[in-house]
Amino acid sequence: MSDVTVVGGGIVGLSVAWRLVQRGADVTVLDGGDDGAWHVAAGMLAPGGESEHEDPALIRLLERSAQLWPAYAKELGVDVGYDDAGTLSLAMTADDLAQRARVWKRQELALLRPSELRDLEPALSPRVRAGVFDPRETQVDPRKVVSALREKLGPRVVPKRVEALSDVDSATVVVAAGCGTAALTGLPIRPVKGQVLRLRGEPGLLRHVLNASVDGREVYIVPRADGEVVVGATQEERTDRLVTAGGVHELLRAALDLVPGLAELELTETTVGHRPGTPDNAPLLGRLDDRVVVAAGHFRNGVLLAPVTADIVAGLVLDGADDPMSADFSPRRF
Amino acid sequence: MSDVTVVGGGIVGLSVAWRLVQRGADVTVLDGGDDGAWHVAAGMLAPGGESEHEDPALIRLLERSAQLWPAYAKELGVDVGYDDAGTLSLAMTADDLAQRARVWKRQELALLRPSELRDLEPALSPRVRAGVFDPRETQVDPRKVVSALREKLGPRVVPKRVEALSDVDSATVVVAAGCGTAALTGLPIRPVKGQVLRLRGEPGLLRHVLNASVDGREVYIVPRADGEVVVGATQEERTDRLVTAGGVHELLRAALDLVPGLAELELTETTVGHRPGTPDNAPLLGRLDDRVVVAAGHFRNGVLLAPVTADIVAGLVLDGADDPMSADFSPRRF
Repeated sequence: MSDVTVVGGGIVGLSVAWRLVQRGADVTVLDGGDDGAWHVAAGMLAPGGESEHEDPALIRLLERSAQLWPAYAKELGVDVGYDDAGTLSLAMTADDLAQRARVWKRQELALLRPSELRDLEPALSPRVRAGVFDPRETQVDPRKVVSALREKLGPRVVPKRVEALSDVDSATVVVAAGCGTAALTGLPIRPVKGQVLRLRGEPGLLRHVLNASVDGREVYIVPRADGEVVVGATQEERTDRLVTAGGVHELLRAALDLVPGLAELELTETTVGHRPGTPDNAPLLGRLDDRVVVAAGHFRNGVLLAPVTADIVAGLVLDGADDPMSADFSPRRF
Repeated sequence: MSDVTVVGGGIVGLSVAWRLVQRGADVTVLDGGDDGAWHVAAGMLAPGGESEHEDPALIRLLERSAQLWPAYAKELGVDVGYDDAGTLSLAMTADDLAQRARVWKRQELALLRPSELRDLEPALSPRVRAGVFDPRETQVDPRKVVSALREKLGPRVVPKRVEALSDVDSATVVVAAGCGTAALTGLPIRPVKGQVLRLRGEPGLLRHVLNASVDGREVYIVPRADGEVVVGATQEERTDRLVTAGGVHELLRAALDLVPGLAELELTETTVGHRPGTPDNAPLLGRLDDRVVVAAGHFRNGVLLAPVTADIVAGLVLDGADDPMSADFSPRRF
């Protein structure tokens, strides 16, 4: 067995493993084979978008990881769809505006009028009432990131489903198994279902990530350079994997109301993922015991938090260093 | 080569072939392998639903074939989903009602109040304004019909794409190639794109076929005994095979407005088919020349018209009998 075994081959586990390998560790990743939340995730790197609901320590963690992403994307050495065109946060109605205005004010972003928004995104519906532009909110393609990391790690990634941590005989075990972490550790991680659509058409309809409140519903639209457009996401406290008529309808309705021209695009994928949520929806980062380190429960921020998680866990495992950034996220807090 | 070669292995070609075989003919079916319109069709057997737009001769043909269906389904000897629970034709708004009322009046169907409609279908939206019940409009599962016919015909169905009728050396050739008939014969058949959804849930949410006008949009909902629910269909003068965001949205919106409980069902299929339409949208049934008989261009009525088409073509090929029912549908009329 290797010095370190990472249980979980999703974006967090692979990022941790790669950082450990770069720092000279002997690492094996055990990958259970199920696609994690990264497979459906749109890859919005939005440290500010969550700030209404979360605590200052989490905001610091999100912002640090967002700062790490440009260099991290470069390190990966291949195109992973990192795109810094920025995000338009939008409100369709007066009620939607009232809802979003509080967050925008705190973020100190200048309110843009409809005409200014349509200068930036001509395809926006004329119904859009207001918005802000946040250049710090960028995007990456999570499938390309995972593919790049798998390539780098090569045979260190072993297809194997771990049923119990006692079956792993490394000196150090990093559990980065997303929702599967609950069964392995007893930690309180629940799956939060999200339905996500992928459309495809000629590139160029949209340039920015759109994150909007549309008649009281939240939707994001993430256009990729190759013509893919990701539309997400429902948020349901359910464990099933069903793509439902209601979920698809809700996403299409909000997306087409916001950008009517999306109607012409091909609907290429309807998918379901489960975000690993904790009781406070903040991640679990740190030692569970002398042998086991946890890097899980990233909820909606797994892609964004992958680089900072990798640095924190590598420091903990190789240097015994407790990064003060992670002090509030101990898995032993529950 | 056989005495008769049928070009086209869809529901019309197979029905013709089987009737010819029953009557003693030596038949081969050449099947190009592409699924025809039957593969996406819901299988509504609705001779009246079309009556607003069509001519008396076509209505007679549709009604004759509807009368043939119960015996035809029995003849097939296996469960093909024939279900005579009947159809509710529905209008959501006052405008929808004004639109449908003319047809209902001609059909001499009694107008049902919302409470009467919900006694028949408790899952209907309380917004539904009026409707009628037509016990003559039934349904069948076209995929099961095709599967039963293929089973009966066995090795007589040969996978082979025909590029030109001169490559077929039978004494008689029946062209039942749907949209492909145009290229083989030069006849004016155009593909009319339809997007169709399939949902799945516990059986029992709906009992009847629903055919509705919902805020100016036409939608049908066909519940099967096994829990499948077919939702259709867009009608687009396009040749592409793209399932679009706009098409799926339009169908889901109308279906969920009509039956809100469908939101919980799994969305299992999004498909595209092309109805073979002629300039007058009536079928092409009859001799093209001494050797070639055409049975194509059935537009939205291929499933309904399969039995009567089989009888007419078998009579023509084996007895030289020109059924008066088909007099108005000669392929030489264009």
